[in-house]
Amino acid sequence: MSTLYGGIEAGGSKFVCAVATSLGNLQAETQFPTTTPAETISRAIAFFKKQQEQEPIAAIGIASFGPVDLDPASPTFGHITTTPKPGWAHTDFVGTIQRALGIPASLDTDVNMSALGEHRWGAAQGLDSFIYLTVGTGIGGGGLVNGQLMHGLIHPEMGHIRIPHDWKTDPYPGFCPYHGDCLEGLAAAPALELRWGQSPETLPADHPAWSLEAHYLAIGLANFICTLSPQRIIIGGGIMEQPQLLPLVRGNVQRLLNSYMQSPSILEEIDNYIVLPSLGKWSGVLGAIALAYQLGR
Amino acid sequence: MSTLYGGIEAGGSKFVCAVATSLGNLQAETQFPTTTPAETISRAIAFFKKQQEQEPIAAIGIASFGPVDLDPASPTFGHITTTPKPGWAHTDFVGTIQRALGIPASLDTDVNMSALGEHRWGAAQGLDSFIYLTVGTGIGGGGLVNGQLMHGLIHPEMGHIRIPHDWKTDPYPGFCPYHGDCLEGLAAAPALELRWGQSPETLPADHPAWSLEAHYLAIGLANFICTLSPQRIIIGGGIMEQPQLLPLVRGNVQRLLNSYMQSPSILEEIDNYIVLPSLGKWSGVLGAIALAYQLGR
Repeated sequence: MSTLYGGIEAGGSKFVCAVATSLGNLQAETQFPTTTPAETISRAIAFFKKQQEQEPIAAIGIASFGPVDLDPASPTFGHITTTPKPGWAHTDFVGTIQRALGIPASLDTDVNMSALGEHRWGAAQGLDSFIYLTVGTGIGGGGLVNGQLMHGLIHPEMGHIRIPHDWKTDPYPGFCPYHGDCLEGLAAAPALELRWGQSPETLPADHPAWSLEAHYLAIGLANFICTLSPQRIIIGGGIMEQPQLLPLVRGNVQRLLNSYMQSPSILEEIDNYIVLPSLGKWSGVLGAIALAYQLGR
Repeated sequence: MSTLYGGIEAGGSKFVCAVATSLGNLQAETQFPTTTPAETISRAIAFFKKQQEQEPIAAIGIASFGPVDLDPASPTFGHITTTPKPGWAHTDFVGTIQRALGIPASLDTDVNMSALGEHRWGAAQGLDSFIYLTVGTGIGGGGLVNGQLMHGLIHPEMGHIRIPHDWKTDPYPGFCPYHGDCLEGLAAAPALELRWGQSPETLPADHPAWSLEAHYLAIGLANFICTLSPQRIIIGGGIMEQPQLLPLVRGNVQRLLNSYMQSPSILEEIDNYIVLPSLGKWSGVLGAIALAYQLGR
């Protein structure tokens, strides 16, 4: 009997729960849609209780959509705070899990956890400063700087940067309820759906949607490069499953930076600088398991 | 006789050289215009040689305009690399100083050094993640994340992020030779001079130049907040000497973030969140002295 570690990836549309060994070998896994906090968190608890009947779980890590309170000194540590997602604002995620399972739990943003997963087992091994970005129903970013997860005042909300928006070529106003045409408002999946009147998966590879999408994402990435100087950018999420998109993004980033950043990583090796997650869809829940390992070992 | 530490703040228009004790007490200081690399670096060397005749200097720290090579493993470590400043590209700054004075030297960006000075003796004491931004002949940013200076792949070049530019209200195209209307191209001192046809210091406090300037700077700051989640932003440089500007910037940042970041620091205490450097014009050279102390103690 070996000690296991539990991870929850709490996404806007689905939850992934898994238990794994300290080496990241998955022992069990389940997925279900994100509905109300009560129903969804109960299903997660039921999954882990069933696992606990067989083997002890040392701790649970949670990779959550945000914004979340990551300040250990705050009375609302581990709560989801102001999310526009109906019903989820002010949910005590960590407390509910801890009380139900009787083991320590901790939480960080979904993107920080994907970054941690990629750092431990994936495309960011050995790096001390890199970004993990996801482009799906929203856009979020996290990562490590100087070897530690990015927190600061709260945590990054990279999807909400303002970028140039040419209203003449793209009259779509953006959907972000807080900022309208921020990066997320212009380039997350709902923007594609609303701008083109069809779901992104049904847009053909040569549709002009993709060059516009690559343009917006590249402005975001170029801005993150100027601001943070990451050693690598890992970019995942449902939108990036379009294989034609990543090469367009890389080319646009080089064009936008215009050789100002004199690094071979950007000038010559961009295919190795802007990359897909090597853990694929598993980086989030594996990162949560890595967090549980830090907590429970 | 006490051991002294030397600092050089190498700015685009002037050099400041100083020696100080390990407590940051200045013992001697000089300033002169930035001309050619040979002439300007020689004047700095002459200043420190004169000081060395009286007391030993343990090390020299350099706060340099950029881009600079900060990779200790690189054959061009301590060189200025691709600056558009005439004559200065590919200058071996650290090597020249070390060889002439026979003591260790190191170098970091001017903004990282101002951040280090403010961290040691100024407005960022006790913080582990904050930004120092300067708005003058250029716009640059640096800081600490997780308690260490920001480096990553090269170092941040925060002035070069792309921001929304409303060509209808502001037809000025921006002056950045690499990116045109990036933040620096639209909001550094030359942009004000070229847009309004007069030097920024001569523009009256109620001139529309200042609300436009506050608008651009606030977009930059809001983007840095979304990307880095700093615990504080320190903003200095010649343009910030206009006393009407900082309150306008703070108000615009709050309006742009639109309460998305649920932190009292931003919602309620922004006067203490976006601040001027408390070391004033001395943060850069004092930061260079703090770097020399790390190197030579």
